[in-house]
Amino acid sequence: MLKFYHAPWSRSSSILWLMEELGVPYEIELVDIRAKEGVPEAYRQIQPSKKVPAIVHDGLVVTERAAITIYLADRFPEAGLAPAFDHPDRAAYLTSLVYSDSVFDPVICANVQNFEYTGNQFPFGTFEDMVANIERRLTAHPFAAGDRFTAADTQLASGIAYTMNFMHALPERPIFKEYLARVEERPANRRAMEKDMELAAQVPFFAEAGAGA
Amino acid sequence: MLKFYHAPWSRSSSILWLMEELGVPYEIELVDIRAKEGVPEAYRQIQPSKKVPAIVHDGLVVTERAAITIYLADRFPEAGLAPAFDHPDRAAYLTSLVYSDSVFDPVICANVQNFEYTGNQFPFGTFEDMVANIERRLTAHPFAAGDRFTAADTQLASGIAYTMNFMHALPERPIFKEYLARVEERPANRRAMEKDMELAAQVPFFAEAGAGA
Repeated sequence: MLKFYHAPWSRSSSILWLMEELGVPYEIELVDIRAKEGVPEAYRQIQPSKKVPAIVHDGLVVTERAAITIYLADRFPEAGLAPAFDHPDRAAYLTSLVYSDSVFDPVICANVQNFEYTGNQFPFGTFEDMVANIERRLTAHPFAAGDRFTAADTQLASGIAYTMNFMHALPERPIFKEYLARVEERPANRRAMEKDMELAAQVPFFAEAGAGA
Repeated sequence: MLKFYHAPWSRSSSILWLMEELGVPYEIELVDIRAKEGVPEAYRQIQPSKKVPAIVHDGLVVTERAAITIYLADRFPEAGLAPAFDHPDRAAYLTSLVYSDSVFDPVICANVQNFEYTGNQFPFGTFEDMVANIERRLTAHPFAAGDRFTAADTQLASGIAYTMNFMHALPERPIFKEYLARVEERPANRRAMEKDMELAAQVPFFAEAGAGA
């Protein structure tokens, strides 16, 4: 049994894509993170900050996107989404996944909010270093972990797509566009996008704004 | 061949403890992150923000503490520091490790700097939620991943010890002290502490301040 706690068009949408890549049955539980009255306190038992995503697999809770991705891709090896322990790509695979959560995301948020800090005040460092690093890595290899698509791409590509195309918070570099073109044509990504659109129509916040129409 | 890029008394000290727990030969390369002239640009090829820690194992670079910990503990299973793929503790193990990097650390930094934000502006959420979560988890189980010590404890305990005892940036809760008492008596932790003290004496920044004396 695999349950996925999700809010459409949020940071958990990258995990929706992962779920579709896995090819195993799962159940979606919508969490209305935009509800005026807030998320019910009971949900804190699943996610300690009442955020999404979270999963429950065979009664075990996993939170944090990198942890969810590593857990599921290793747990369902037949999907071929994770390099094995002793495969050389495992190093870049794990690095990229943790980096998406601990550097990419907070750096983008800090930049969008014009939060002023120096590179050594926060472990996530500067916006410039982050952008240069992503660009350098994607120039050296076509995918997050090397020469083939892995679960790390669901997280890196979702991050780039959302912040570059929707938030306009990431510079539009040719290498980013080429990377997105490579991964976004995957059937699982298209299914996830369609599903997210359908789910958004069920959320009052989006329905009132005419989204999903 | 395992090389560890380290700066004494920094965030990489938690990885020094992990190295000692692993029980495999490794070589330390000191990175002078406090150097007035900055860290040499050449180091960026190892760590994209010129931070510590980083490791190079058989020519493969791994950065981000959670990634380094997951990589090494899985790669050297004889150390018994990681729950296997199909062990129920794997869920909490991965969650705790990513949480240390993506929530615990940035939340502490934001709080120390009196950075004002709301819980939904940053994926790492609020200080209150983080403290409550760590307290709740350590009340439910004696260790980060459950009922036994794992590599996740090297990161969680180092974070608690440094921020509570040294920075005074975390409330002194009895459950935190009890947890530290449980893990800090480990021989590998003591060896790491002594080694870090000796290494600090080689760093001009600390030597000038009379540290390590």
